[in-house]
Amino acid sequence: MRRSLLTALSVTALFAAQAAVAQTIYPVDRAEILAGARFDLKVEFPGLVARDRASVTVNGRPIAEVFGREAEFIEREDGQPASSIMLRDATLPAPGVYTITATDGEHTASVGWQVYGGGQRQARNVILFVGDGMTVANVTAARILSRGIREGRYNGRLTIDDFPQMATVGTSGVDSIATDSANSAAAYNTGHKSGVNALNVYPSRARDTLGHPRVETLAAYVQRTRGMSVGVVTNTEIQDATPAAVFAHTRRRSDYIPITDQMLASGVDVLLGGGSAAFLPRGVPGSRRQDERNMIDAFRQQGYTFAEDAGSLAEAAAQSGTRRLLGLFTLGNMDGALDRFYLHRGTVSRFPNQPDLTEQVRAALQVLERNPAGFYLMVESGEIDKNNHPLDWERSVYETIMLDNAVRVAQDWARDRNDTMIVVVPDHTHGMAIVGTVDDNRPGEQGRDHVGVYQDAGFPNYPPADARGYPPSVDVSRRLAVFYAAFPDYCETFRPSLDGQRVPSVRQGNVYVANEAFCNQPGAQRREGNLPRTADSGVHAVDDAILRAWGPGSERFRGFVDNTYVFRGMAEALGLGQ
Amino acid sequence: MRRSLLTALSVTALFAAQAAVAQTIYPVDRAEILAGARFDLKVEFPGLVARDRASVTVNGRPIAEVFGREAEFIEREDGQPASSIMLRDATLPAPGVYTITATDGEHTASVGWQVYGGGQRQARNVILFVGDGMTVANVTAARILSRGIREGRYNGRLTIDDFPQMATVGTSGVDSIATDSANSAAAYNTGHKSGVNALNVYPSRARDTLGHPRVETLAAYVQRTRGMSVGVVTNTEIQDATPAAVFAHTRRRSDYIPITDQMLASGVDVLLGGGSAAFLPRGVPGSRRQDERNMIDAFRQQGYTFAEDAGSLAEAAAQSGTRRLLGLFTLGNMDGALDRFYLHRGTVSRFPNQPDLTEQVRAALQVLERNPAGFYLMVESGEIDKNNHPLDWERSVYETIMLDNAVRVAQDWARDRNDTMIVVVPDHTHGMAIVGTVDDNRPGEQGRDHVGVYQDAGFPNYPPADARGYPPSVDVSRRLAVFYAAFPDYCETFRPSLDGQRVPSVRQGNVYVANEAFCNQPGAQRREGNLPRTADSGVHAVDDAILRAWGPGSERFRGFVDNTYVFRGMAEALGLGQ
Repeated sequence: MRRSLLTALSVTALFAAQAAVAQTIYPVDRAEILAGARFDLKVEFPGLVARDRASVTVNGRPIAEVFGREAEFIEREDGQPASSIMLRDATLPAPGVYTITATDGEHTASVGWQVYGGGQRQARNVILFVGDGMTVANVTAARILSRGIREGRYNGRLTIDDFPQMATVGTSGVDSIATDSANSAAAYNTGHKSGVNALNVYPSRARDTLGHPRVETLAAYVQRTRGMSVGVVTNTEIQDATPAAVFAHTRRRSDYIPITDQMLASGVDVLLGGGSAAFLPRGVPGSRRQDERNMIDAFRQQGYTFAEDAGSLAEAAAQSGTRRLLGLFTLGNMDGALDRFYLHRGTVSRFPNQPDLTEQVRAALQVLERNPAGFYLMVESGEIDKNNHPLDWERSVYETIMLDNAVRVAQDWARDRNDTMIVVVPDHTHGMAIVGTVDDNRPGEQGRDHVGVYQDAGFPNYPPADARGYPPSVDVSRRLAVFYAAFPDYCETFRPSLDGQRVPSVRQGNVYVANEAFCNQPGAQRREGNLPRTADSGVHAVDDAILRAWGPGSERFRGFVDNTYVFRGMAEALGLGQ
Repeated sequence: MRRSLLTALSVTALFAAQAAVAQTIYPVDRAEILAGARFDLKVEFPGLVARDRASVTVNGRPIAEVFGREAEFIEREDGQPASSIMLRDATLPAPGVYTITATDGEHTASVGWQVYGGGQRQARNVILFVGDGMTVANVTAARILSRGIREGRYNGRLTIDDFPQMATVGTSGVDSIATDSANSAAAYNTGHKSGVNALNVYPSRARDTLGHPRVETLAAYVQRTRGMSVGVVTNTEIQDATPAAVFAHTRRRSDYIPITDQMLASGVDVLLGGGSAAFLPRGVPGSRRQDERNMIDAFRQQGYTFAEDAGSLAEAAAQSGTRRLLGLFTLGNMDGALDRFYLHRGTVSRFPNQPDLTEQVRAALQVLERNPAGFYLMVESGEIDKNNHPLDWERSVYETIMLDNAVRVAQDWARDRNDTMIVVVPDHTHGMAIVGTVDDNRPGEQGRDHVGVYQDAGFPNYPPADARGYPPSVDVSRRLAVFYAAFPDYCETFRPSLDGQRVPSVRQGNVYVANEAFCNQPGAQRREGNLPRTADSGVHAVDDAILRAWGPGSERFRGFVDNTYVFRGMAEALGLGQ
C-alpha cells in the first residue's frame, strides 16, 4: 500500500518540482495527514500578488469550499514584498489523495497529500519510548555491560531484545538528511516531517518563531477527540526538544519560556523531568526567567500536584485523586545512572533524591491509568544522546540500560492487559561503534597500543551487574573500545571520565579546541576533529534508527519506515481518523 | 522458549565455570546442536592422564554407549605432555538438554548442550545473502544514492526495505567479542560459534590447522540427509572466509589450497566467484599453487561445467543438462560495481566480462532449481566489507546496492513459489556513519571546513540512479560525509578515490603509516589512527548486525538472536533434525 501511494504521488511530485520556483505550499508535497487532524495550510508566493489573482484549490475546488471558510490573504508577510495565504487549523476528514494547487495567476505550483485513517482501534494506550540518539552500539554495549557475555554468548537478554516487531526508521527532515531531536520528535508526534530545531511546525519564512504553520500533535488530537490522557516523562529538561514535541509548536526549540507556557496550555496530564529553571520566577537561584511568574504555581492552579523528588513523586502518584502531576527534579537535565548510583558526580549532591526513570514511568502509569479513555505516554531516555555528544560512551550506555529498565516497568504493567502498544525508538543515531577492547595490560605507552581488535579483543572484565542492571564500575582494566566517527578537536583518553561528564572541547574565540584537561592523562591521544571547528561535540548520524514494538497494533512496524510512520502507526493502533 | 533454555543451561554453566581449570570440552558450554548433525567431541586435559582414569559421560552415560563406538584416547596430543579424547562425527539424534562431563579421575568439568530439531518443513529452498560487513550506514547510504531523497522522503525503497521480518544479530565468537568473517559465517553455516579465522571448527589446541574439532555444515547436512543441492555465489575469491564457510573446515581461513581441495570434495553443486589463482597449476600466470595440479580440470572431471566470464556463465546455466557449475571470473576478488560500470579501475581491463552478482544469482538459481529436493544457496556481496576496510565508503555502498539488486533477482524468482525463504544478513558491522554532507562550495581551505552537519548538511547532489540502480557518478560537489570510527594512520581526502580502491596506509617496517599518495590532495587531513600501528585498515565492529528475512519460515526471525540462530532458523525452516 505504501508502495502504491508513492507511485500515485510521484506524478504530482514531478509537477511540483517543475513549478517549485513559483510558490511554496505547506504541508509539503507527499505529506501524509491523519484524517481530521488539524494543520495550517500556508502558501508563500515569492513576490507580491494581487488578492484577486491568487488562488488555492484542493482537488480543483476552492479552499473556502473545501474547508468551509476563507483563508487569510497576507499581502505583505512580515512587511516584506511577498504575499502569503494562510488557513489555520484546517482539517480533511476524508481519507484519500489530495492535490493542492496554488496560483498567482501566472505561475502554478502543486503538491500531493495523502489523508489516511479509519481503521479499528487495537490499543487503548500507546507508550512511546524515545531512546534519544540510541545507536546500535548503545544497545550492544548495554547488553554486554548489563547481561555479561561468555564464549560469545550473552548471559541474558535486554527487555527490548524480546520485542517481536522491528523496523528501520528514516530520520531525515524537509531541510536536511541530518535531523536534530526536535525535527525528529515532531515527526513522531505529528506525522509531518519538519526542519532542524523546529517543533511541530513547517519551517516557513515567518519571522516570528511562533508564527510558522503548525501541525496538530497526537497528544492534542487524542485529548480533543477521545478525552484520552497524555503524559510526558524525560530525564532531560522538560522543555527539551523530545518532551516538548509532545505539546509545543515553535520554529526554535530553544524557546523555553514560550514552550513552558504552551505546556501549561496544553493540558498534558503528567509532566515529569528536569528543567525547573524555566518555571521559577526571576530572582530564585537558578531561574532562567526574565519575569516574576512562578510557573509551578500556575500549574498548581490548574490542578496539578507538584513533586520535586523521588519521595514526593511516589506519594503524589499514589494519591488516588491525583489526575494531573508535574514533577521537576532538577534545574536543568537530570543526572544519569552512572553518576546517581556509582560516581556521585554531576548535580547529584545538589539534587540527591532524583527519581530514576523507572520510578518516573511507574508514577506516570499510576496516574494515567485512572482515565478509562486511555492515554498516550511519551518517555524519553534523553541522556543517551546528551552523553553521546561529548563522546562519553559509558554514560550513554548506562542510560541505554536505564531505558531498557524503564521499558520493562511499562511492559510488566501492560503484559496482562492486552490493550497497550509499546514502541521503543531512537530519534536519530550517532556514529558510535564498539571495535574491541582497551586492555591496560597490553604493551605500549600510547592509548592506541592498548586497543585490541579481533582475537586480541577477548572479552571485557566489567564486574557483573548489580540488581539495578548496571555493573558497579566502569573503571576496569579491560574495557570496551568505543569510538565515534565524527568529533571536534579533543584528547582521547581511552578510559572513562570518572570526574563527571566528558568535556571534549572548549571554546577559544570562535572555534572549539581540545580540552587540555584530558590531554595530559597517560596514553592520551590528541585528535584533530573532522568536523568544522565550530563544532563543540560529536554530531548526529543520518544512519537509520532501529524501532522495536510490542503489544496490540505493533505488527504494523516492519521493514523500513519513515519517521512520520511512527506517528501513523500509533494513530492507526489507536483507531484515530474516523 | 529461548529464554527458558538459558535458564536451564545456566546451572550447568555455573558448574562448568568452577571446573574450567580442569579440562576443555568441545562443543563448548551452551552449544546448540541440530539433531543428527555431526560434530567432533573433544576433551582436552591440561596434562597427561592415564587412559583408564579419563572418562567422558553424556547425561551420566559413557560416551561409547551413547554414540555406539569408542572415542579415541590421545595420550600425548601433538607430542605434547597433555592427553585428549576425540570422537569424530558424533551425532545426537534426539532433541533435549545434554550434560557432558569429563574427568581425569581428580578434576571434573562439565558443559551443557541443547539439541533441537523435529519441526515441520516450511521451505523447500533457503537463500542466505550475506552482506559482508554491511552496516546500517551502508543501507541508508545505498537508499540515498540509489533511490534519491527529497524533503526528507526517499523517492523509492530498496528491495530489502520491504522484507517483513527483522532481527538484530549478536556476532561475537568463543574467543572474542569481535568476530572476523570466518568465525561469523561458520556460525551461520553450522550453528556453532567459533573463533577468529576459524571455519567450521572449534579453535582447539591442535597444531594442524586441519585437525581441530569439526562441526557439520548446513550444506553437508542437507546433501547427506535430503539430497538437496548447494550453491555458493560470491564476488570475492571463492576460497574467502564467507564462501568457504559453506563447505570447508580449517582453523586458518588462509588455507586456500586445502580449502580448494575441500571444495572439490564437498560436492557443492554451484560455485561462482573470483579466486582462480588457487585453481591454476604453478607456472600459469597468476597461480598461487606450489604444484602442477589444475583444479579446474579436477572439477571438470567431477562433472562441473566451467565458466570464465558473463557470457559463458549464462550459456552454461541455460544448458538444461548443467547440474554442476564452476565459475571463476578473476584471479583474485572480482571488481565491484563502481569500477566495473563507471570508473573502469581495479582489474576490469584484465577481466572485462565479469558477471554482475545479479547474473551470478540468476545462473545459480537456474541450475539449482533443477533439483526437486530443493537447495541451499549462499550469496555473498563480499566487497561491502572489502571496501569498508580501506575506508572506501563509496565502493562499499555501491556493493550494498548490488546486494540489494541481487536480492531482488532472488525474490522475483521466488515470489510466486511460496517455497523459498530468503535471509539477508551481515556477518558483522563496521564503525561507519553518515554524518552529513561534504560541500565543495562551503567556505574554508581544509576538508573539514566543508563538512556540513544538521541543517548545514542539506541534501547531496548525486545524479539520479541509472537503470542499474547506481548514480553514474560519485564525484559531485555535495557528497555524503561518511566517516569511520576506527582507523590506522591515513590521510582523509573528504572525496572519493577515483583511481581505484583507497589505500589508506602502507607498510613501513613493522607498522603502517599514512599513504602519502592521499596526503597532498587539496584539503586532505592527516589523521593519526586510534588502532595499534600494526593495523593497516579499519576493523570490524562488535555492534549487532541487522537481519532481514522473507518467505515461508522467516517469521521466526525477530528480536535479538545470536548468530548461531541464523543457522537454526534456516535448519528449522527446512524441517531438519527429524
